[in-house]
Amino acid sequence: MADSRFYDNRGPFSLAQVENLTGAVVVAGANLGEVQDVAPLDRADWNQVSYCDGVKFQSALRTTRAGAVFVSEVLARFAPLGCVALVCRQPALAFAKLAAAFYPTAGCFWPAGLGPLRLIADSVRVGADTIVAPGAFLGENVEIGSGSIIGSSAVIGRGVRIGRGTSIGAHASISHALVGDRCIVHVGARIGQDGFGFVGTSEGHYKIPQLGRVIIQDDVEIGANVTIDRGALADTIVGEGTKIDNSVQIGHNTRIGRRCIIVSQVGISGSCDIGDFVVIGGQTGVADHVNIGQGAYVAAKSGVSRSLEGGKVYGGFPARPIEQWRREVGVVSRLAKGKQGKNERSGSQD
Amino acid sequence: MADSRFYDNRGPFSLAQVENLTGAVVVAGANLGEVQDVAPLDRADWNQVSYCDGVKFQSALRTTRAGAVFVSEVLARFAPLGCVALVCRQPALAFAKLAAAFYPTAGCFWPAGLGPLRLIADSVRVGADTIVAPGAFLGENVEIGSGSIIGSSAVIGRGVRIGRGTSIGAHASISHALVGDRCIVHVGARIGQDGFGFVGTSEGHYKIPQLGRVIIQDDVEIGANVTIDRGALADTIVGEGTKIDNSVQIGHNTRIGRRCIIVSQVGISGSCDIGDFVVIGGQTGVADHVNIGQGAYVAAKSGVSRSLEGGKVYGGFPARPIEQWRREVGVVSRLAKGKQGKNERSGSQD
Amino acid sequence: MADSRFYDNRGPFSLAQVENLTGAVVVAGANLGEVQDVAPLDRADWNQVSYCDGVKFQSALRTTRAGAVFVSEVLARFAPLGCVALVCRQPALAFAKLAAAFYPTAGCFWPAGLGPLRLIADSVRVGADTIVAPGAFLGENVEIGSGSIIGSSAVIGRGVRIGRGTSIGAHASISHALVGDRCIVHVGARIGQDGFGFVGTSEGHYKIPQLGRVIIQDDVEIGANVTIDRGALADTIVGEGTKIDNSVQIGHNTRIGRRCIIVSQVGISGSCDIGDFVVIGGQTGVADHVNIGQGAYVAAKSGVSRSLEGGKVYGGFPARPIEQWRREVGVVSRLAKGKQGKNERSGSQD
Repeated sequence: MADSRFYDNRGPFSLAQVENLTGAVVVAGANLGEVQDVAPLDRADWNQVSYCDGVKFQSALRTTRAGAVFVSEVLARFAPLGCVALVCRQPALAFAKLAAAFYPTAGCFWPAGLGPLRLIADSVRVGADTIVAPGAFLGENVEIGSGSIIGSSAVIGRGVRIGRGTSIGAHASISHALVGDRCIVHVGARIGQDGFGFVGTSEGHYKIPQLGRVIIQDDVEIGANVTIDRGALADTIVGEGTKIDNSVQIGHNTRIGRRCIIVSQVGISGSCDIGDFVVIGGQTGVADHVNIGQGAYVAAKSGVSRSLEGGKVYGGFPARPIEQWRREVGVVSRLAKGKQGKNERSGSQD
Repeated sequence: MADSRFYDNRGPFSLAQVENLTGAVVVAGANLGEVQDVAPLDRADWNQVSYCDGVKFQSALRTTRAGAVFVSEVLARFAPLGCVALVCRQPALAFAKLAAAFYPTAGCFWPAGLGPLRLIADSVRVGADTIVAPGAFLGENVEIGSGSIIGSSAVIGRGVRIGRGTSIGAHASISHALVGDRCIVHVGARIGQDGFGFVGTSEGHYKIPQLGRVIIQDDVEIGANVTIDRGALADTIVGEGTKIDNSVQIGHNTRIGRRCIIVSQVGISGSCDIGDFVVIGGQTGVADHVNIGQGAYVAAKSGVSRSLEGGKVYGGFPARPIEQWRREVGVVSRLAKGKQGKNERSGSQD
Repeated sequence: MADSRFYDNRGPFSLAQVENLTGAVVVAGANLGEVQDVAPLDRADWNQVSYCDGVKFQSALRTTRAGAVFVSEVLARFAPLGCVALVCRQPALAFAKLAAAFYPTAGCFWPAGLGPLRLIADSVRVGADTIVAPGAFLGENVEIGSGSIIGSSAVIGRGVRIGRGTSIGAHASISHALVGDRCIVHVGARIGQDGFGFVGTSEGHYKIPQLGRVIIQDDVEIGANVTIDRGALADTIVGEGTKIDNSVQIGHNTRIGRRCIIVSQVGISGSCDIGDFVVIGGQTGVADHVNIGQGAYVAAKSGVSRSLEGGKVYGGFPARPIEQWRREVGVVSRLAKGKQGKNERSGSQD
């Protein structure tokens, strides 16, 4: 499942190995040979292992084509015929442990394939008229189109593909990513590092391997010191023509549509879906798994805790239609002034 | 107009070329030869082109000394005698296109002038007792005063001037900037990248060339991972003795006065004017084109959406006098407690 | 007091020199020879100088074992027998000046000890199976345990110790810090730079030397572009198993407990004490000198201005029990709707 340009698959594993690695127990449909990979329920194939993270995924479980699935005892009976039920108490934890066995990545990135005295791996391919500035680091199998610029001290990790006419600023770091044409990535931007995902256990927070990518479409601009985490199982996507200001944070698996404007210091959590033409004002926060519809305008410093319909203007925290937020601000202001009057009167009587 | 230490002017252009590049049409005063540069209305000279961005700039248009001006059909008659009216539907877009023709910069910075095996350009001048750490990158015509330190992997772009006794931390990137004496720029600070400016078109967000600089006066401290964008046509300025904490964002054209304190994660939008001795608490946001008067104190996490008088204390969002904000917080708290009481009583009757 | 792995002590100084450097005047107990160091009141020894920053430190002053103390005229009589009272108007400023004389550090870090063509100082010790990627900079006396990875262009300052199995991402900078085993420090993280501390004077903000360290315990994860300032006199500490998301800011002297979760763009000011198992949602701010008790859960975008008891859920600004905050949001929403109804009626009568 994970893109082999960025990840090495250390499988396959037998079901017995899976049981050993995760503590799960096979309770049904044991006629599977080896498992080749991990994948989410809706995209898993017959030789891959998935997991069912609670009742809300029950319907996805019923229709999965996965060869095996980590599942709780209660839900195990919903696994389809021919799908091995791997019963355990914390399916997400078992899955995270198996994913870490398949893809034992270092947890942080540095560009592989560089000899001690070389800054550019042998396998790098660079287009005509492309400038790789002194001190740039290009890892194995990096591909850069024609007419692009890679700034000094930029670090481009293994397998990254960058399009034509794209500028990568000094000190930017890019890994596990495909970047389109005519993009600008400013100084110090961080693209493709691990998303922030853990499974709680009694021994601490167990890290969930982050096996997706970041896809930056054409004509995107990404500001200085922006952070865009790569996906866990899916990809993090920034749509064509979208402009992102400095120090914005974008969490794993989030998809941002086309021609959006995301102003400085906005934080968008993981697994959000932001439509085309959305504008998000500075310092706004968006909670995880929230959708914002096409053409919505969210004022600065808002807190978007629930999904928002497209085509409207929102403000405040929790974000609501902006006229409503303005009325609330006005009501409170008038109330406080009335209250003040009373206090002053009673004060003068003392 | 743009500082030739940082920008190369590819002009001049004839008026016919200007028409071709922008789609604007000359409708008056065509006896101008070639245009040499772009400039704002109030600073343009007889051989430069400016633009009038709507009715609110009508009086600036009437008195401009620009040789030519992009202007809407309606306002064209206000162009002074001898000023060529370049009529078009989106003057800001036409101006952005012409500016991009004059200054076709890469859109992100890397230090020009470095040979493949050298990290320091030949034309760099470094003062006595100044330490340039291994791995620092210094572009063409960089000048650094005596007794300064440039950290490892810092990247200093073409033409940047740094004063005496100033420390530049590892991984800092500085371009299009003049930095004073006795400053401290901490690790990972980003100074001088493009501001966030676009003109909306039916084909997407058209990037406005950013042709200004960043001026850092003496005795300024700039925290780790701070981002300070350079000006679009004007400069971004940080006044003498001002201290800026980590991860602050400062937008293009903003001027910050002397001896201010700007606490961590504050975001100041573009074209703001912050007076001397202003204190801004952590995570506060300031909207664009807002003025904050001398000696104002803005509490943490405020949202400054309108200009604030000096010498007072503000808080909340929208920011207001802090006693008023505190009263409002108190009123709402008391109301909610009353409301709760009622709910509980009615609940017990069910 | 300051850790000699990171700081060089330029003392000792005689009391006469201390008077000259700071303007303070010895008024009692002058039979002390030379002073060897600076230290806080509660940790100072007989040959060290401390300071009493106002009435609230009166009891600490009475019991200090410091050899000398900067103190106001009014409080001087509370200095214990044998402790030299160094009377001055601004004890914090006098202390900062003396600390700067003892430790005249550059104010920003670059890895000392590197020759012009070497990226790794001679005195560096690196464990078995540890990978130091091309372009990493390791300063004097850096020690790295076995099985660790240091990414390209990472800059590790003098004396830093990094444990076993720890990954340091590309472009990370670490100084004045001890990092444990099995940690992950992501790309662009900034650990160990100066805290943000100044004493106000009529000539501007006087920088307080930052003489502490950052301690990162085992199994900690630190996100991309995070900033963690080192302590002023004490240490900044991140406890075992705590996970910190991208672009979080942590101020000097703050202690964070074990297995906390700190979500993206949170800002924690200086001198806070965060208990074990605390969860802090994204974009929340925590004021300085605030304690958050064990197991507290603070919702996203909160503003924590006062200490919070452990084991409870909080939200809003100022942060309060979350049910209360939700009631307040509901009350205001209902009020505004009522108000709106009135306005609409009166509008229809016009």
